Amino acid sequence: MSSLLPAATDTTGTPSPAPRDTLHFPPTHQAQLAPYLPSPPNTKPSLPHVTLTFATSLDSALSLAPGTQTFLSGPQSKAMTHFLRSQHAAILIGVGTAIADDPSLNCRLEGVGGFGGEGLEGQPRPVVLDPMGRWDVNGESKVIRLAREGKGRGPWVVTAEKSVGGLVVEGREVLGRTGGRYIVVPSTEVGGREAMEWRDVFSTLHDLGIRSVMVEGGAGVINGLLEPRNAELVDSVVVTVAPTWLGEGGVVVSPPKRFDQDGKRVPTARLKDVRWIPLGEDVVMCGRLLAS
Amino acid sequence: MSSLLPAATDTTGTPSPAPRDTLHFPPTHQAQLAPYLPSPPNTKPSLPHVTLTFATSLDSALSLAPGTQTFLSGPQSKAMTHFLRSQHAAILIGVGTAIADDPSLNCRLEGVGGFGGEGLEGQPRPVVLDPMGRWDVNGESKVIRLAREGKGRGPWVVTAEKSVGGLVVEGREVLGRTGGRYIVVPSTEVGGREAMEWRDVFSTLHDLGIRSVMVEGGAGVINGLLEPRNAELVDSVVVTVAPTWLGEGGVVVSPPKRFDQDGKRVPTARLKDVRWIPLGEDVVMCGRLLAS
Repeated sequence: MSSLLPAATDTTGTPSPAPRDTLHFPPTHQAQLAPYLPSPPNTKPSLPHVTLTFATSLDSALSLAPGTQTFLSGPQSKAMTHFLRSQHAAILIGVGTAIADDPSLNCRLEGVGGFGGEGLEGQPRPVVLDPMGRWDVNGESKVIRLAREGKGRGPWVVTAEKSVGGLVVEGREVLGRTGGRYIVVPSTEVGGREAMEWRDVFSTLHDLGIRSVMVEGGAGVINGLLEPRNAELVDSVVVTVAPTWLGEGGVVVSPPKRFDQDGKRVPTARLKDVRWIPLGEDVVMCGRLLAS
Repeated sequence: MSSLLPAATDTTGTPSPAPRDTLHFPPTHQAQLAPYLPSPPNTKPSLPHVTLTFATSLDSALSLAPGTQTFLSGPQSKAMTHFLRSQHAAILIGVGTAIADDPSLNCRLEGVGGFGGEGLEGQPRPVVLDPMGRWDVNGESKVIRLAREGKGRGPWVVTAEKSVGGLVVEGREVLGRTGGRYIVVPSTEVGGREAMEWRDVFSTLHDLGIRSVMVEGGAGVINGLLEPRNAELVDSVVVTVAPTWLGEGGVVVSPPKRFDQDGKRVPTARLKDVRWIPLGEDVVMCGRLLAS
């Protein structure tokens, strides 16, 4: 079984300069995920391949409480996430997650740039969806530090035209120094907030050369993409489930309710082409959203 | 690999008198579940082996809305549930589920009594937890009809001393004719309702000769048994997860929140000895609750 990432499975014994926190994801597991990964030719004109991925407890919680980062999945699932990152041109998260978690948003898989590989090869572009310009990106942000160390790319921040004026100059400079930038996407005001269509976000990224996006969270982003009207934008879904119940009050994945034409409640989203891959104590579910 | 239920895998070609809705669960899958099944000797004196089992969506919902029966799992998971039933002396559900679903609570696995087997061999005893005596069990109840047809046992209804006076005579007669009965378990009044301790329910069943109980729901029963103080009563957990999101407003499994001694939120329940078994489009998770 050959690897999708040649450098990651170099078994010739060549010494690797990879840092100690480098992750390895075995080729046999890589092969199980292959049907769900972006692969040319992309059949959707002017839109990237979109993979929706996240980890929950058995009670569908991403974290114990709003603003709390909860470590749910085990080491093998973590390596899987980093393998997925290596297979996408960009990782997208919502601004709430960027603020709450100060995430790394880089790829630590063995063989990618900064982890045994050349330059930034295999490092995805971090994208933060921040319509209102709330994220205080600065020199202490983890994603910026990693970019400066050559262990990740500078982030792109998707914002609304109206929010551009309020952005602090420091953020723009910090982004610029790591190859990051602000990107303006059309928005409309809904209840005092700037709201974007997912199609506009993805097509703007496509226009900028991004051919695949891995969407990682948080709950607002995930629940929005699971709504029937967005299902056609999502090509693959990869969910890790950890064998724990976080309990009531957690931040949960559960999309808005859905009704059929007779007004009867029906499931909001169903999957097809489902594959369950046990990984350590967790399970990884791969599938595709059924069109509504 | 030999079967745990010899009659279910008789491959000699003997004609079977089993009805058309008889289910088959392959011996290879039976073997995967074996470590989680009741098997003598039971190491808990005066308590039965308790298996907690249910099926949810990815968003941890048992059904789309209260009082609505939702069919979540596929044919293979359904056969698995009936195999589990054949391995337990009793199936227990809460009264809300009995009222909402009018469930069969019998075992349709090939080889058990009424489905190719002798008498009622392998048929579990249905037990309905009904402290307030709310269940109107009558000749039209599915569980009663099946018992009359020799396809299941008559139900036991667990109720509180205070509720006995209010039970309709018809219920008692209907139960009696199928070998069922009311069983009184100690209770205390909490906010106008009769509340029982799970330990009392299970030890009463043990006193009546029940050595293994499969608890199937609904949400109130499950969330209660997942609370840390009840964890030691539960020997195995078997959860089927179907690849669908039912959406907000469903009846969900999510136990009460839990805090550590410093007042910090921690997961309510964790599992050990976890095994994930893909079955068709679903996955079946087997595990044991970690002691708190």
